[in-house]
Amino acid sequence: MKEQQIKFYYKNVTESVLGGEHGISEKQFAALAAKTEPLIEQLNAQRKAGKTRYRDLPYQTDTVKAVKAVAAQVKWCENFVVLGIGGSALGNIALQTAMNPFMYNLDDKQRKGCPRLFVFDNVDPLQLSSFLSWLSDNLDKTVFNVISKSGRTAETAAQFLTICQMLEEKLGKDSLKKHIIATTDSQQGTLRKTADAFGLTTLQVPDGVGGRFSVLSPVGLLSAAVCGIDIDRLLAGAAEMDKKVSQQTFYKNPAAVNAAINWHYYNRGKKISVMMSYSYALKDFADWYRQLWAESLGKAKDLSGKEIFVGPTPVKALGATDQHSQVQLYREGPNDKLFTFLAVEDFGVDVKIGAAPDIAPELDYLSNQDMSRLLNSERAGTEYALLASKRPCLTIAFEKICPYTIGQFIYLLETSTSIAAMLFDINAYDQPAVELGKEATFALMGQSDYAALAEKIKPFAQINDSFII
Amino acid sequence: MKEQQIKFYYKNVTESVLGGEHGISEKQFAALAAKTEPLIEQLNAQRKAGKTRYRDLPYQTDTVKAVKAVAAQVKWCENFVVLGIGGSALGNIALQTAMNPFMYNLDDKQRKGCPRLFVFDNVDPLQLSSFLSWLSDNLDKTVFNVISKSGRTAETAAQFLTICQMLEEKLGKDSLKKHIIATTDSQQGTLRKTADAFGLTTLQVPDGVGGRFSVLSPVGLLSAAVCGIDIDRLLAGAAEMDKKVSQQTFYKNPAAVNAAINWHYYNRGKKISVMMSYSYALKDFADWYRQLWAESLGKAKDLSGKEIFVGPTPVKALGATDQHSQVQLYREGPNDKLFTFLAVEDFGVDVKIGAAPDIAPELDYLSNQDMSRLLNSERAGTEYALLASKRPCLTIAFEKICPYTIGQFIYLLETSTSIAAMLFDINAYDQPAVELGKEATFALMGQSDYAALAEKIKPFAQINDSFII
Repeated sequence: MKEQQIKFYYKNVTESVLGGEHGISEKQFAALAAKTEPLIEQLNAQRKAGKTRYRDLPYQTDTVKAVKAVAAQVKWCENFVVLGIGGSALGNIALQTAMNPFMYNLDDKQRKGCPRLFVFDNVDPLQLSSFLSWLSDNLDKTVFNVISKSGRTAETAAQFLTICQMLEEKLGKDSLKKHIIATTDSQQGTLRKTADAFGLTTLQVPDGVGGRFSVLSPVGLLSAAVCGIDIDRLLAGAAEMDKKVSQQTFYKNPAAVNAAINWHYYNRGKKISVMMSYSYALKDFADWYRQLWAESLGKAKDLSGKEIFVGPTPVKALGATDQHSQVQLYREGPNDKLFTFLAVEDFGVDVKIGAAPDIAPELDYLSNQDMSRLLNSERAGTEYALLASKRPCLTIAFEKICPYTIGQFIYLLETSTSIAAMLFDINAYDQPAVELGKEATFALMGQSDYAALAEKIKPFAQINDSFII
Repeated sequence: MKEQQIKFYYKNVTESVLGGEHGISEKQFAALAAKTEPLIEQLNAQRKAGKTRYRDLPYQTDTVKAVKAVAAQVKWCENFVVLGIGGSALGNIALQTAMNPFMYNLDDKQRKGCPRLFVFDNVDPLQLSSFLSWLSDNLDKTVFNVISKSGRTAETAAQFLTICQMLEEKLGKDSLKKHIIATTDSQQGTLRKTADAFGLTTLQVPDGVGGRFSVLSPVGLLSAAVCGIDIDRLLAGAAEMDKKVSQQTFYKNPAAVNAAINWHYYNRGKKISVMMSYSYALKDFADWYRQLWAESLGKAKDLSGKEIFVGPTPVKALGATDQHSQVQLYREGPNDKLFTFLAVEDFGVDVKIGAAPDIAPELDYLSNQDMSRLLNSERAGTEYALLASKRPCLTIAFEKICPYTIGQFIYLLETSTSIAAMLFDINAYDQPAVELGKEATFALMGQSDYAALAEKIKPFAQINDSFII
């Protein structure tokens, strides 16, 4: 049986389509290949040296066993709530939207015995109080999965403390063991020691895998398994892509070509990278990608320490919806964007459009047509319109949306990110700039260690009346 | 009683905070005022001449009566489904997220007798088939509001035809009158004639108000009223802001100052405009704004017809969530962004964070604190960190989120858009670039009038094997 694949398609960035000013010439492609091929080799060597541990996640068979065991253990619950943020939430949301029905949480039938899924990745009092009000009637049927490597992430810690208190008050101290799964460091940190003290079931956030590269670890796998997603096939798809993106030959390696094209355009003033999904199911992967790309590639310094302040700005868009919102700008605004379309060849199901009434023959072209044809015509039509305005377009086409192709997609983009960072000569795996905001939050929350910083922040945080309208 | 207000705050774009390279000096502000004040006068004159009809929407008392009558007429339904796209969906979604609870659709208690709300703004077969499957069990309790000025918008027409057929098949031809409300042109077009032929209840899309400026017309008001939102207060808030944004004095006019600051930064290489909401409730207004700003300001030609290809790229972000996704880039990437924070002073409700356990004293700073303090500390902390990296920050602060302040906010941004377009010397109210994509869709759907275009598209739409990996 031939497996379902994803395909990376790049003709519509070439000079033959876009002309010399905005297209990539054969000579430029040759230069990109020459620049990138040694980096592929270097990345493969780094991987062997254990420096890119996310690359090994498709092969963690013991981990998968552990995840499945925990998923089986919580089979009784009717609601599964992830408490996490950033890399401990975006992948979970993306997997769910991609592979479960739109009406999953609202329609018992379509959920097929799996629990509802909620992913809480914020500390908004209005949003949270609405959820907690509902939860208080449903707490005994709910399991929480708190995800944090350290346990010190303020948002996740705040949610965790709040849920612990609610469980204790409503169901007793002993209920924590039954109702909370902690995904955290194997040895140390606030959540590890708390989980051990409370006797919680735990799964591990693997060492050496940053949050934004962790979706194929227990971080992303548990909620997926609980919601009926085939995680074996997900990892098998990633393993399949591993072969392709380890290829030393530039033109055979989709991650290398993707990274090189992105880097090329960034250097020529196209600093915005739009991922436009023509599939509702894939829309939250555009959001996941937004973190992966922005945190990995937005860096002030190169590897030698020189200040460079680089980084493409990722933007998510959804077709056909955003044709009625963003395409005017995409075609007539500055030519400062590279577009990556997510396309689906076979949606697996379809909806037949109703027949136009006799009085509206202008709608006959829609009568009894498949919705999939309409959506894919809109995608091709929009791409054509962008090309007419000389805007470069890549496409990642899914033969079908399924765990196997989603696994490929995740692994392709993660490896593209590693290679892009090498082209930019930056560190893909740190995020030094988020520290100051965290410290400022500590200061503003009244942590005594940060009193001096609190004083420094005051003039900026206090609203000055003479600049208010 | 003092009414709740929104406040526009701009100190953190000034030279005194950001320094000379990235801050706006007093001299530059004076120049902006001199440039903008005549435009305010011009806009006020245009308004009197009936050229900016959206400005009159707060005062349409007959329309509001008609909307309320229709809302009362459908009080029996349990599900209300908007069929629209772009300006006929984004405002509806934004109003709902802003003013109804997060768990509205899932929690009967929190819905307080109002119907569930669904806004369908896409033609994705996977998403739609999931919805239709649920709907087939709930059709008799469902009302649809199809919104289109012309009725020829492909996505809305496709949904409308599909729903009509489903209603006819399941509930009989006569059911359309009971189950569909059409919001459309008062006189002409495909949806008007169809609605009249079917005997549907209708509301009007007012003349001279473009889709992206129509949220305060029946387009946005009906679903809001049906879901229990006080539309009188919404319009009263807009009317209150009308006074402010009609002010001839630059420094007293928040729309003028906002537009001028945006224009100033665009001309100095900050071509990305990030709206970062520190409120889940306001997050979909960032999406609504994204259409307003992009379609109005992304233009190839100035008013004299000269090619200029301008337009800031609006980006939506959500705090605190995106601190763990985008802030690394926002601080260390290129200094090419202007940030607008949406802040909430009083969330109306709060959540008390649980107490830290004895073994985790490092979390004591969170114990028994209010979530609102945490969220607002994160906002102030993030702004401080951005300012430390010399990134300009505006804030729109809501004393509270309620219909009155939301009305102000909508009107402020709409008028800001008009003034910004005048500064860019472009037409804010057209969208010529979306036509080609529409025609290409017709061609690809097999419309015979577009056969020649279909031939032209073929080489771009067909995937060429030699560029696939």
